[in-house]
Amino acid sequence: MNLPTLKDVEEAKRCLTGVAERTGLIHNKYLCDMTGAEVYLKPENLQMTGSFKLRGAYNRIAHLTDDEKKKGVVSSSAGNHAQGVAYAATKFGVKSTIVMPKPAPISKIKATKALGAEVVLCGDIYDEAYQKALDIQHETGAVFVHPFDDPMVMAGQGTIGMEILEDLPDADIVICPIGGGGLISGLAVALKSLKPSVKVIGVQTANAQSMYRSFKAGKLDICDCKPTLADGISVKVPGDITFEVVKKYLDDIVLVSEDEIADAMFVLLSKAKIVAEGAGAVPTAAILNNHVDVKGKKVVSLVSGGNIDMDRLAGVIKKGLSK
Amino acid sequence: MNLPTLKDVEEAKRCLTGVAERTGLIHNKYLCDMTGAEVYLKPENLQMTGSFKLRGAYNRIAHLTDDEKKKGVVSSSAGNHAQGVAYAATKFGVKSTIVMPKPAPISKIKATKALGAEVVLCGDIYDEAYQKALDIQHETGAVFVHPFDDPMVMAGQGTIGMEILEDLPDADIVICPIGGGGLISGLAVALKSLKPSVKVIGVQTANAQSMYRSFKAGKLDICDCKPTLADGISVKVPGDITFEVVKKYLDDIVLVSEDEIADAMFVLLSKAKIVAEGAGAVPTAAILNNHVDVKGKKVVSLVSGGNIDMDRLAGVIKKGLSK
Repeated sequence: MNLPTLKDVEEAKRCLTGVAERTGLIHNKYLCDMTGAEVYLKPENLQMTGSFKLRGAYNRIAHLTDDEKKKGVVSSSAGNHAQGVAYAATKFGVKSTIVMPKPAPISKIKATKALGAEVVLCGDIYDEAYQKALDIQHETGAVFVHPFDDPMVMAGQGTIGMEILEDLPDADIVICPIGGGGLISGLAVALKSLKPSVKVIGVQTANAQSMYRSFKAGKLDICDCKPTLADGISVKVPGDITFEVVKKYLDDIVLVSEDEIADAMFVLLSKAKIVAEGAGAVPTAAILNNHVDVKGKKVVSLVSGGNIDMDRLAGVIKKGLSK
Repeated sequence: MNLPTLKDVEEAKRCLTGVAERTGLIHNKYLCDMTGAEVYLKPENLQMTGSFKLRGAYNRIAHLTDDEKKKGVVSSSAGNHAQGVAYAATKFGVKSTIVMPKPAPISKIKATKALGAEVVLCGDIYDEAYQKALDIQHETGAVFVHPFDDPMVMAGQGTIGMEILEDLPDADIVICPIGGGGLISGLAVALKSLKPSVKVIGVQTANAQSMYRSFKAGKLDICDCKPTLADGISVKVPGDITFEVVKKYLDDIVLVSEDEIADAMFVLLSKAKIVAEGAGAVPTAAILNNHVDVKGKKVVSLVSGGNIDMDRLAGVIKKGLSK
């Protein structure tokens, strides 16, 4: 199996220079006070397209051959990868078709179309959209851009790890959301290659815990998803490659509840002044609820994205105010 | 009259190193698309205490003599300066008393107390709180830390201008909110001293336009304030010193409406994924509504703060969704 390497991540970093925003770290006093740690947010919600996904998608599409570019690309996504693929494909003049599950946030569907992709709505969860995208690939010969289980995609996401260590060389712990595992795989390759002592912790919602269960069992486990605020990480089947990387590099994976996610979104909004989508708030939920022992440590909590429908955000505020 | 100089700003920058966060610029594609400009946000809502005010207050309090520190400080503020003074005073072990107008956002009152200040609520608008603070100064001998009309306070705010030019040396236009004028004064001194060609434009809400009218008339004008979403810049009487700096350096001042402010807050939330308070959104309101000609230019839109009650933010979302 072809796992991504530090060299792949370094090459992706060159590829993404001038394309992806170089997000800085945000030191947040409230989160420090609440956790007893030095907490830094890595705000990939401020990334172009509103999430980190642009990095991996762009790196993948940049490496297509001219022949592949002519055939176009197809992908499946709950919404953030969709926007990354659409943005990158349009940038390279490549036709893109994206299959999204029907319950995907309207804002994500609209944004994907606005970036130039043809959007096909299919299925109730990500995995059904994925099957449809594979069908389209077989019919059309388009190149499938996998949202996570692709070394080039992982390498793109891994550039986040390089940036974290540039900004905070003495980071002790980096905490990252997990859906299919693409983000944390790239991140872990970069972090553990550059600084083996740094701890890399993954977080899933208890309502979609396939990678958590796979990690704990030591073998790939498929697991149905319940509805979750963290739609961006609601994945039934972890990646084969990502699981190998996760097994090799991760220190732990923890779970957070839906209530903890909503609370963390409210804290990020009211105290850190940023909009995190549910998936983007799970690392902050984990440290605010002591699922990770961070006291006295330098901790990076990765806010992976901020693409949430505003009516849903209003619901999070209402819930937060009622406490 | 003792106007702040570039040297004062440079000294403030040394003073603030390791204290104030070094906020980066955020390049936002949506705002670029909407305006035809290269738009960068300077997110001082991500600053410690949720606004730029910490910079000026800290610089002022850092320069107190030991005797002055013993007497404590007193100030008046709609909320953001309050938090800056409270944070800085507590850091130096100095007692602080802050007078806030009664309609100040609850979140700002709470945060100020949490930072260690004694809070006195008095009056309906900032200017009444200001009078009360002067009374306390006379009674107690505490040092009055003016929220804007003080060269050391302006110099602290001016560090934002130095950072902008470090990050974007070819900035064409910097757009900044105006209340009493402290922020834009420091900013203009720094920007125009370092790069005379850069345009500095101020923005006020039409509901509190005292500096706008003073600037247009060429003489200080007092002007009653109507209720505004931009509570942080609702000031009846501009500063004497700030007005001199504004006259000397500013290229223009423009007004925005309350509807434009609410729309800009919604855009910053939904498209830039950051929480701006009303005052923090006026520059973005100005460029989104063509009050400043920015087409083809490199523009910095200063988001001065993000301290807004969450129920008020919910109202902004509701209004934004209804369009």
